Amino acid sequence: MSRALITLLTDFGTADYFAGAMKGVILSINSNAQIVDITHEIPPQDIHAAAFTLLAAYKDFPPQTIHVAVVDPGVGSARRPILASSGGQYFLGPDNGLFSYVLERELPASVIHIKNQKYFRQPLSVTFHGRDVFAPVAAALAMGVEPSQFGEEIADFARLESLAPVRSADGKIRARIIHIDRFGNCVTSLTRQDIADDAIARGARLIINGRKITSYRRFFADESNGSDEAFAIWGSAGFLELASLNTSAAQALDANVGDIVECTVVS
Amino acid sequence: MSRALITLLTDFGTADYFAGAMKGVILSINSNAQIVDITHEIPPQDIHAAAFTLLAAYKDFPPQTIHVAVVDPGVGSARRPILASSGGQYFLGPDNGLFSYVLERELPASVIHIKNQKYFRQPLSVTFHGRDVFAPVAAALAMGVEPSQFGEEIADFARLESLAPVRSADGKIRARIIHIDRFGNCVTSLTRQDIADDAIARGARLIINGRKITSYRRFFADESNGSDEAFAIWGSAGFLELASLNTSAAQALDANVGDIVECTVVS
Amino acid sequence: MSRALITLLTDFGTADYFAGAMKGVILSINSNAQIVDITHEIPPQDIHAAAFTLLAAYKDFPPQTIHVAVVDPGVGSARRPILASSGGQYFLGPDNGLFSYVLERELPASVIHIKNQKYFRQPLSVTFHGRDVFAPVAAALAMGVEPSQFGEEIADFARLESLAPVRSADGKIRARIIHIDRFGNCVTSLTRQDIADDAIARGARLIINGRKITSYRRFFADESNGSDEAFAIWGSAGFLELASLNTSAAQALDANVGDIVECTVVS
Repeated sequence: MSRALITLLTDFGTADYFAGAMKGVILSINSNAQIVDITHEIPPQDIHAAAFTLLAAYKDFPPQTIHVAVVDPGVGSARRPILASSGGQYFLGPDNGLFSYVLERELPASVIHIKNQKYFRQPLSVTFHGRDVFAPVAAALAMGVEPSQFGEEIADFARLESLAPVRSADGKIRARIIHIDRFGNCVTSLTRQDIADDAIARGARLIINGRKITSYRRFFADESNGSDEAFAIWGSAGFLELASLNTSAAQALDANVGDIVECTVVS
Repeated sequence: MSRALITLLTDFGTADYFAGAMKGVILSINSNAQIVDITHEIPPQDIHAAAFTLLAAYKDFPPQTIHVAVVDPGVGSARRPILASSGGQYFLGPDNGLFSYVLERELPASVIHIKNQKYFRQPLSVTFHGRDVFAPVAAALAMGVEPSQFGEEIADFARLESLAPVRSADGKIRARIIHIDRFGNCVTSLTRQDIADDAIARGARLIINGRKITSYRRFFADESNGSDEAFAIWGSAGFLELASLNTSAAQALDANVGDIVECTVVS
Repeated sequence: MSRALITLLTDFGTADYFAGAMKGVILSINSNAQIVDITHEIPPQDIHAAAFTLLAAYKDFPPQTIHVAVVDPGVGSARRPILASSGGQYFLGPDNGLFSYVLERELPASVIHIKNQKYFRQPLSVTFHGRDVFAPVAAALAMGVEPSQFGEEIADFARLESLAPVRSADGKIRARIIHIDRFGNCVTSLTRQDIADDAIARGARLIINGRKITSYRRFFADESNGSDEAFAIWGSAGFLELASLNTSAAQALDANVGDIVECTVVS
């Protein structure tokens, strides 16, 4: 009975007609769809940023939500359009790794190679599959069309490098920076499955680009440690973050996505 | 039975309360209205950019959609508020040419000069007709009020210069740059009505600012022509575009909106 | 019978997953909620800008609207989450003065200190109460939960300095700049309760940073006074503004939020 919920996550920006056209297509097919923008400001063609943002957001949406993610440098080429069903939700977009962080967590996943042109907008362009493939397929899915109607299941969908940190023989954990947000907070790949909630407070050390992070804060305004330096803090997406009060930790640490973060754990 | 769909297209930005206030007014009058932002990031007072963006988006919305466009340098002056009915949709905004690209395509059009203050927000400001005139009239229209209730039909509404390219005696086509998007792609006024779908691939030449464009791509990642230079590509709005991979064609070509693009067609 | 309307006003930007996660939480609890973004582009941690923007927008929303405002430098600390009921609407956010401009106008107000963790998202983070406290409480409120269920009434909620200008013995009014919008228009705290609608036109003078403003326009394109200098104009939020045509008055006047505007009234 509840209306179908469709989210959009793209690198289209909001200045052009692109996001509006996708919404028009969806609502032309399914006037009951409810559309929520996660963001349209993924840096152009940055698949990793899109994959992280989707990972950070999807859990907060209700079952059956249809997430449409379009960061699609290969649009028009042979790259496949896919529909993944996983964790009780749907994920629609190009097969370039966009969903691999989510699918790594939510097993099992069923992934369909979308082929059935009957559900595409006509004429089908080779430059804007967000409007011509993913929007109309999302609208059809929201109306109750079965995933199997769109194409056949595949197993060899694209995967990005796993987010899981690696533990070496000497007990150190090698994680990495997986995202830097607008405030310059550096999201690491460390979760509470990798280190204890209070590991840093109890003396675990992080090393990034040769710099040691020894300070920990429970919340941003927490000044109990009396330091202005970069500190570690558990972020709202479930990862340990490196932050700095009122300044960009990314800048202070000269940190970039992909940089290694080594964690020396205390027993 | 379906809820009324109202789109918004303005130069208000999204940092201030302007777009929010318009939505509040609409929903105060018509709580069933469904509101979709096309964009609020039209460059301030750029009527041509707004007219193009609306032209590129409107076709993807369902019949009876009400498009509210407010780029309104003359707000408070004698310029008229209008409601155009055309192509099965409605267009509401100031009479300054915003709708002329759409109306050039969708004939016949009926254009009403909105005068009936009964449908305006009170007190009526002289600085914010988006909130005080266009939002409440859109809400009333969505509730079923007849266009004729808002005022009387006019024929002398404002028109921008036609988008149609001009064919000269020697067979050349003079088109122009009608939009530059956030990626620096230059949208020309050439459509498939002006030149064949494969005209460039078959040897037609484009000249802009003394530079020749001889390269053509079917889709962005298409590297069959092995060139890194600016190329022509059919864009998703139905116009031929000048693009460059991973860089701004506008910058590479020193192109601006209004620049002439000459097309030398092959037979 | 009408769907519950929830507005969002934050400093989260729109590039990250933050606003999306709040919407997911709301719709997970209350799939009928209708969510409107007022803005997510309040300058980071700028409580005054958020308070002004909310003040300028709330009146245009229907009764029972739930306004969620999250500009929250103290998140995770002892600062309280509050729910204010005032003027037939609801205001949800941190207790740091965000609502004080509204509450100054809409008396009486009932303010609840939100304590009932039953309505919070679990696990409750200490960095993202927008998602974990305010979104789920808004959704519950929209489903009909009584304000008193969330906690107990308080009287000592945080207040910003009053917006009301001060009249001195010599008849001068000391107002101040309370906001500068994206166009550089400077919103003063002067309303039509402080000076007559036509006070400036009739010779009242404004002095800011030693510069006199003697020019007045009824609307932006009004060139009856033939001047290109900064002028006074009644803005759409009900305050007198200082503006400049096609340029930033803030820059021209070197004006900042908080600057004193002295008004010399004519009798």
